[in-house]
Amino acid sequence: MIETLKPGQLLARGVCRHLRQHNFVSIEEFVPERGLRVDIMALGPKGEIWVVECKSSRADFQTDQKWQGYLDWCDRYFWAVDEAFPTELLPDETGLLIADAYDAEIIRMGPEEKLAAPRRRQLTHKFARHAAQRLLDFRDPGVAAISVL
Amino acid sequence: MIETLKPGQLLARGVCRHLRQHNFVSIEEFVPERGLRVDIMALGPKGEIWVVECKSSRADFQTDQKWQGYLDWCDRYFWAVDEAFPTELLPDETGLLIADAYDAEIIRMGPEEKLAAPRRRQLTHKFARHAAQRLLDFRDPGVAAISVL
Repeated sequence: MIETLKPGQLLARGVCRHLRQHNFVSIEEFVPERGLRVDIMALGPKGEIWVVECKSSRADFQTDQKWQGYLDWCDRYFWAVDEAFPTELLPDETGLLIADAYDAEIIRMGPEEKLAAPRRRQLTHKFARHAAQRLLDFRDPGVAAISVL
Repeated sequence: MIETLKPGQLLARGVCRHLRQHNFVSIEEFVPERGLRVDIMALGPKGEIWVVECKSSRADFQTDQKWQGYLDWCDRYFWAVDEAFPTELLPDETGLLIADAYDAEIIRMGPEEKLAAPRRRQLTHKFARHAAQRLLDFRDPGVAAISVL
């Protein structure tokens, strides 16, 4: 599987593994609302919601016009980059992970901006539905043909 | 995959497929609290939580000592059985699906007993964590070795 992943997806894999060690479960390519797609949404043991955007290069970061919109959909926001990335480009007031395909490390925690309760409920519900649907696609590929999502 | 599933799991597959047509996503073998394990927990578009127990035979039903405990963990409760099952054994005040490995049909809706909001939040969070963890196990089998769940 690893051979077929793009650079950003390899970073995402390492990040998801690392977050697991913090007791956070993650899903990739989550759409909190129409027009926004975050690389990783992670859900903590107490309902905490973190977003991690994976940037494989300077250009990948500089062409991202949407990241500030992600801040409204999480309690903490992080970038994940590899160790060659020029991290001085990244805004100070965001979290930072250094990652490779196998693991990651939290270098700087994203500051906490707690979600309002209704949005947290809505996001947790959407996260649950997204994860269960994708799980079902793996467990029972035949169901994709009859899916209505 | 189908060859390796037990009779109850084949019913569960058909049920999950059918629930999808009602816009419910499902996970199997969910543990709402220590000591309880439900065959299927399904999550609807508005946050509805349904439990379905799959019974492959009369004996399978008659040895179930725990099902009444499941009622406290869902808005609606259903049995799923195949068409040969003696459905007169099943309590009237529960829902009923007739299923096979490929699909199912809701014969009788389970009466609605709405969960209290805190329990719904707790269950939705647990459902999300369970589904995402199992999804991660499929997507990245290597992570199982470092999982702390």
